[in-house]
Amino acid sequence: MKQSHLFTKTRREAPKDEVSKNAQLLIRAGFIHKEMAGVYSFLPLGLRTLNKIVGIIREEINVIGGEEVYLASLQDKKNWVPTNRWDDAVVDNWFKTHLKNGTELGLGFTHEEPLTAIMKDHIRSFRDLPRAVYQFQTKFRNEERAKSGIMRAREFLMKDLYSFNVDQKVHINFYEQAKQAYVKIFERIGLGAKTYITFASGGSFAKYSHEFQTLTEAGEDTIYIHEGKKIAVNKEVLNDEVLKDLGISRSDLVEKKASEVGNIFSLGTKFSDALGLVFKDVDGINKPVIMGCYGIGPGRVMGTIAEVYSDEKGLIWPESVAPFIVHLIALSNKKAVEGVEDQVKKVADEIYAKFIKRGVEILYDDRDATAGEKFSDSDLIGIPTRYVVSEKTIANGEVEMKDRKTGKVEMVKISDFK
Amino acid sequence: MKQSHLFTKTRREAPKDEVSKNAQLLIRAGFIHKEMAGVYSFLPLGLRTLNKIVGIIREEINVIGGEEVYLASLQDKKNWVPTNRWDDAVVDNWFKTHLKNGTELGLGFTHEEPLTAIMKDHIRSFRDLPRAVYQFQTKFRNEERAKSGIMRAREFLMKDLYSFNVDQKVHINFYEQAKQAYVKIFERIGLGAKTYITFASGGSFAKYSHEFQTLTEAGEDTIYIHEGKKIAVNKEVLNDEVLKDLGISRSDLVEKKASEVGNIFSLGTKFSDALGLVFKDVDGINKPVIMGCYGIGPGRVMGTIAEVYSDEKGLIWPESVAPFIVHLIALSNKKAVEGVEDQVKKVADEIYAKFIKRGVEILYDDRDATAGEKFSDSDLIGIPTRYVVSEKTIANGEVEMKDRKTGKVEMVKISDFK
Repeated sequence: MKQSHLFTKTRREAPKDEVSKNAQLLIRAGFIHKEMAGVYSFLPLGLRTLNKIVGIIREEINVIGGEEVYLASLQDKKNWVPTNRWDDAVVDNWFKTHLKNGTELGLGFTHEEPLTAIMKDHIRSFRDLPRAVYQFQTKFRNEERAKSGIMRAREFLMKDLYSFNVDQKVHINFYEQAKQAYVKIFERIGLGAKTYITFASGGSFAKYSHEFQTLTEAGEDTIYIHEGKKIAVNKEVLNDEVLKDLGISRSDLVEKKASEVGNIFSLGTKFSDALGLVFKDVDGINKPVIMGCYGIGPGRVMGTIAEVYSDEKGLIWPESVAPFIVHLIALSNKKAVEGVEDQVKKVADEIYAKFIKRGVEILYDDRDATAGEKFSDSDLIGIPTRYVVSEKTIANGEVEMKDRKTGKVEMVKISDFK
Repeated sequence: MKQSHLFTKTRREAPKDEVSKNAQLLIRAGFIHKEMAGVYSFLPLGLRTLNKIVGIIREEINVIGGEEVYLASLQDKKNWVPTNRWDDAVVDNWFKTHLKNGTELGLGFTHEEPLTAIMKDHIRSFRDLPRAVYQFQTKFRNEERAKSGIMRAREFLMKDLYSFNVDQKVHINFYEQAKQAYVKIFERIGLGAKTYITFASGGSFAKYSHEFQTLTEAGEDTIYIHEGKKIAVNKEVLNDEVLKDLGISRSDLVEKKASEVGNIFSLGTKFSDALGLVFKDVDGINKPVIMGCYGIGPGRVMGTIAEVYSDEKGLIWPESVAPFIVHLIALSNKKAVEGVEDQVKKVADEIYAKFIKRGVEILYDDRDATAGEKFSDSDLIGIPTRYVVSEKTIANGEVEMKDRKTGKVEMVKISDFK
């Protein structure tokens, strides 16, 4: 698209109350708008990147058999009392509201309960299993503090997948598939090298759960990484038993700060018992369904990328999640005499048309602005590849290409653009 | 997809408290789940149809220059006090909630205020206009009564577009473009013939607003239609002055019940004045931005389609919004001797593979169920074209094709499937 049509402007300063680097950069670059602490709106560039992340997750979850749904935010008490998660003394991050008749409603902070209730209508026998159901849906969490930008918001998009299986063996098989899907997702998103499968507390039904932790100083978690095995242990569970289970020694571990970009969790029969989700097995006997849950917050992932891939000039998007792949900058020929065609604009327009024709996502800075403004905006927005068209470059029949990540510059022949 | 992989089952009866036809049919067919009165979750078939509607709207709004955003649901009082819309005595359908420190928050029922506040960061001069910004986003409205299924929900997806222009003339030009985009949208969705541009109250800044009203007995509005001119007048504004303005006489009008599937509204400077959204004009003088808003509820559209296109057997989707285009039904050969290949399954599998290869969205009923169950499920779900493969049809080298809408049946040669 032409940048003159993009409604967002960059800004020099983020709001004074914004202390996180990810939100500061994303606000300054026009990706997001801060509504209040922990509440952000996504503007066109931000929504493009968010949708890229969502698209990658959706593809990989579909590969492992996920069926997509979209559940309501407003929550009925009846599904939450049986699991003892309605009471604010038990779950301390509910947002609650009321119908006009006084009925108390909740805003979903997760969806195990309502989905388990839905599945009761659709699972009767072992023939109806396995099932894997997921959604991209807004969660509300009444966080006491919200100082990590979009890495910990009070309202945020979440991909939550839930699995339903006949027994523990089949469950573990799916759990491993989901784990591998997550590995693929973070690789494709560009966080693979910095993301560790991290052993964490498993709750009542499994010894461990698995977190996907991305190394960053902005992370809220402390983990102990084992470089050789490319695994980690969450500080919360680090003890001799865990070390023994994993066959590693304390001295091989390095303490790091990290951001939990995903987690997978065996739920056992916790929810199916409480809400009565049973199936008739081959032997004709009713058994509780074995469940698992698998979360990724696309907004937190985006915030983590902003923390990990940025420099003093701005954001540096991996190509797979960049809002655009190419940033084309025309440094307009100010000296052009009126009535004489602007050659820089002509060449830039032609290159733009060629990229569009090839289906390349391109942002074309056609604005009436100085070279300095265009370059600093471009660095701040962080599109992977930048082409600059100026009088100087076209004099040699060339365009300058610069890689945002490496800073490497090379000249490309105008005739090479097809 | 294979129907054995679809987790939803159809049901004979909708919940007893569900009185609307659209929700009864959509629940029975497994498109939606009722969480409580006015609150519905979308299951895989329902989400597919909802996404088709969203996709059509997005395409047409992009054509008129819309830029997509995704704003937060949680609302800060500061944006709503200046327009006098925070007070529950003024706006009676707020859902309100609280942060832990006691700060009152709202759940957005519309987004004029927060978007106007955002645009203050991005509009400075006439060069930054025009702008058209839209989103697909969940609205919350604390309705006193919610008895129309997904046609009036307490939580629902809305496409809300807002326009920002330098003056009334440019605004009206965009307003007309939006009106034509809406006409196209409802045509593409399949509601064109039954949808009337309806003159309604214009508020402080325009004589009229325009509603898009689809004729259905389930509608909550009463309108007076003029068949010849294909326009209508909302009962609320029907008077001699309106008749004169439109050059029509009362005797040509017919009273009808209708559902408001969309509306477009001139906002003038109501929000820009209240929130201080100004731009510097060519003459160097600050002027308030002229705004308009343009809404469509994809869920209400889906509910209206269910009301308008259904019969005693179930739903009848227009092809453009059907969850799948083709429903392939294999009536498995029960008499097949073990070890002998099931010819019906073999032919159906081959036809399925061919449709998939061509990229046709197909639901393949491969389940172990009776012909009666498969036919009644297929009629209820309402996919436009059904192919039935049975021993009888393949004996003639054929497959039966049936049109859900017309009921017309014809035989198709198996060799014709490419």
